[in-house]
Amino acid sequence: MDVELVSVGNELLLGHTVNTNVAEIAQFLSEIGLAISRSVTVRDDHGAIRGAVRDALDRAEVIIITGGLGPTRDDITKVAVAEALDLPLIRDEQYVVELRERFGKIRPGPMPASNLSQADVPKGGERLLNPLGSAPGIWIQMLNAVLIMLPGVPREMRGLMSNEVVPRLRNRADDSVILSRTLKTTGVAESALADVLSGVEERLEPLSLAFLPSVEGVDLRITASHMTKDEAAAKLDEATAILRPMLGSWYYGSEDLAEHLLNVLREKRLTLSCAESCTGGLIGQRLTSIPGSSDVFLGGVVAYSNEVKERVLQVSRSMIEEHGAVSTPVAEAMARGAITCFGTDAAVSVTGIAGPGGGTTEKPVGTVHMAAILRGKAACESRLFPGDRIDIRNRSAQAALDLLRGLLLKD
Amino acid sequence: MDVELVSVGNELLLGHTVNTNVAEIAQFLSEIGLAISRSVTVRDDHGAIRGAVRDALDRAEVIIITGGLGPTRDDITKVAVAEALDLPLIRDEQYVVELRERFGKIRPGPMPASNLSQADVPKGGERLLNPLGSAPGIWIQMLNAVLIMLPGVPREMRGLMSNEVVPRLRNRADDSVILSRTLKTTGVAESALADVLSGVEERLEPLSLAFLPSVEGVDLRITASHMTKDEAAAKLDEATAILRPMLGSWYYGSEDLAEHLLNVLREKRLTLSCAESCTGGLIGQRLTSIPGSSDVFLGGVVAYSNEVKERVLQVSRSMIEEHGAVSTPVAEAMARGAITCFGTDAAVSVTGIAGPGGGTTEKPVGTVHMAAILRGKAACESRLFPGDRIDIRNRSAQAALDLLRGLLLKD
Repeated sequence: MDVELVSVGNELLLGHTVNTNVAEIAQFLSEIGLAISRSVTVRDDHGAIRGAVRDALDRAEVIIITGGLGPTRDDITKVAVAEALDLPLIRDEQYVVELRERFGKIRPGPMPASNLSQADVPKGGERLLNPLGSAPGIWIQMLNAVLIMLPGVPREMRGLMSNEVVPRLRNRADDSVILSRTLKTTGVAESALADVLSGVEERLEPLSLAFLPSVEGVDLRITASHMTKDEAAAKLDEATAILRPMLGSWYYGSEDLAEHLLNVLREKRLTLSCAESCTGGLIGQRLTSIPGSSDVFLGGVVAYSNEVKERVLQVSRSMIEEHGAVSTPVAEAMARGAITCFGTDAAVSVTGIAGPGGGTTEKPVGTVHMAAILRGKAACESRLFPGDRIDIRNRSAQAALDLLRGLLLKD
Repeated sequence: MDVELVSVGNELLLGHTVNTNVAEIAQFLSEIGLAISRSVTVRDDHGAIRGAVRDALDRAEVIIITGGLGPTRDDITKVAVAEALDLPLIRDEQYVVELRERFGKIRPGPMPASNLSQADVPKGGERLLNPLGSAPGIWIQMLNAVLIMLPGVPREMRGLMSNEVVPRLRNRADDSVILSRTLKTTGVAESALADVLSGVEERLEPLSLAFLPSVEGVDLRITASHMTKDEAAAKLDEATAILRPMLGSWYYGSEDLAEHLLNVLREKRLTLSCAESCTGGLIGQRLTSIPGSSDVFLGGVVAYSNEVKERVLQVSRSMIEEHGAVSTPVAEAMARGAITCFGTDAAVSVTGIAGPGGGTTEKPVGTVHMAAILRGKAACESRLFPGDRIDIRNRSAQAALDLLRGLLLKD
């Protein structure tokens, strides 16, 4: 079954609101093996909505339309859809009664007249219960397709998807699902990974493989569709078994690298601290964003000035003078300082130039030195990272954590 | 000028990625008075991309296509667009040289062969410089329309929009703009703010007013459209003059609160440090994400364990035993400890229970104590924040910074 989505709303096209409904609806549909083949967003405009609905009807068997079901003047979805389908709008008097009751409970005084239009339904359409708002969903069964209208407010859309739309569509879909698994890698460029995995797509068929690069590394997502849940899980296991050996030590898991490290350290009963200069708290923040991190991660120092590096982390002034604060010896001394300061088994550190200012010919913006210490053993790395301040900081945090991962692999 | 957007990528339709590019591109276009009239998202599929491009060409004068310009097999946008326009793809040998140079700088070894396709350009197309990635943007001028291809990675898309696309489109647009201004508030609920501002919308006409609540506070966005830049700026000034007195000390500026504080402290030649428990580096990270923060912010301690609070921040064990680590006296002692440790004029601190574990009947999840010190004077606050771990941490960081803002207002 082909599913198309039509989102209605000026705010989505003016940049005031990010349309999160598409991804959420896709997730609901994946439970019953359905995928969105096309998604279009149009203005609160009769012609635009009519056109999008007619186009979708030419191609898809399920059309889901969100937004424009409210009581105000710019809510015109129902009228435009009725026009597109050449159906009259009929007022549902039973729903008018329910609406008045609903309003009586919420606030004193009569229901605003503008809400009456929310009881209009295109002829032959069915109302879908929306306990979270005054706009019902609408289900219109046609000869070759079903057209579903949902409110655009995310929590109301969610309620209707899970209570009404998914159960009804499940009856028409077979028992297939869409299942994905993510293999996360770091320390390798997308193109280099593509070279290493060249030709593997054929071996993974009928699964699909996607490369999802970010500043933290490249995620590989394998997706199984058109099969039962058990078949999909088995195929994903097979694919993982093919891919893992090809990924070598670039692969670290399916979870965030910080979470992965916390898990490995916890298993080994080791503790962790950090010393950050240009990342300014990013590493600590990433580690502590994970619930339960406190049994492994004891603390960190953000040492933004040289004085703090000396005073709190015990980096010697002569070392800073000789090598500069952005140098491998200082990175290692910072990590050792964190170990002393917090009494941990392991530490990671970063010192670098995140920009936009502060770069020199010798040490341009993006120059970053990182260190990790594990039970006394150190690993250091210096890199020249591309990107802006945010990128450089994120890449540095990831690379520093990855240094510790390297030490743990050999531990 | 009608602008249509085509987003390419299975991940957007499978629900793995929320398409934030639409809203961001809309914001860029609003600077030059342009609005997106339609946005469509299609799969990584030749036929789907071709169809979407041809449909868009029938309607719009500007077509922006994002995604699918990477080096891997699922990146097929350029090929599909070339097919839709019936243009051959030509390899740009000059760009191959630049690509090899780029790779040489970043990592050792030759450039992966898969990157070569990134130098292909549909005949007559122009490359747009992308300093943040290996995929260039592409600008294809046709008789009645221009077609622009951009990478889907948000930071690369942003760079190309602001450096290449907006300046080029500006020359063709008339001189009207869509201008917005944001007045940021914190410490007040959206509904309370709405009550205070009740009736003000009429006075602001023809400008529109939007309430944008988040865990950091409520932003008020006023938007002027269909006027010249000067007219819009004047109208926004008038609206700001009406709103500011109504907002009182809830209002702090148009910039991030961390940036606002750094500016005020810099002007007063004061320095800042922080001591974080449950926020785990979030405050340091927010402060240091702002370029040039190093002259004000000297450093911070993430004191996740009691031992670190005692050893590094000199919080007395007896105080922790008497009041508990999550208490106002400990918050204040942590801030004073940061001042001693870093020798700064000001400090902020947070200690709390971000959850999901760790809550008790007496101190449930969401209990957070914050302190700020400025030239010896302290301000403390304890709150019970709603939301999940991420929300609670973000609310805590914002509230701690806001305590310091209160002290600075009275300084």
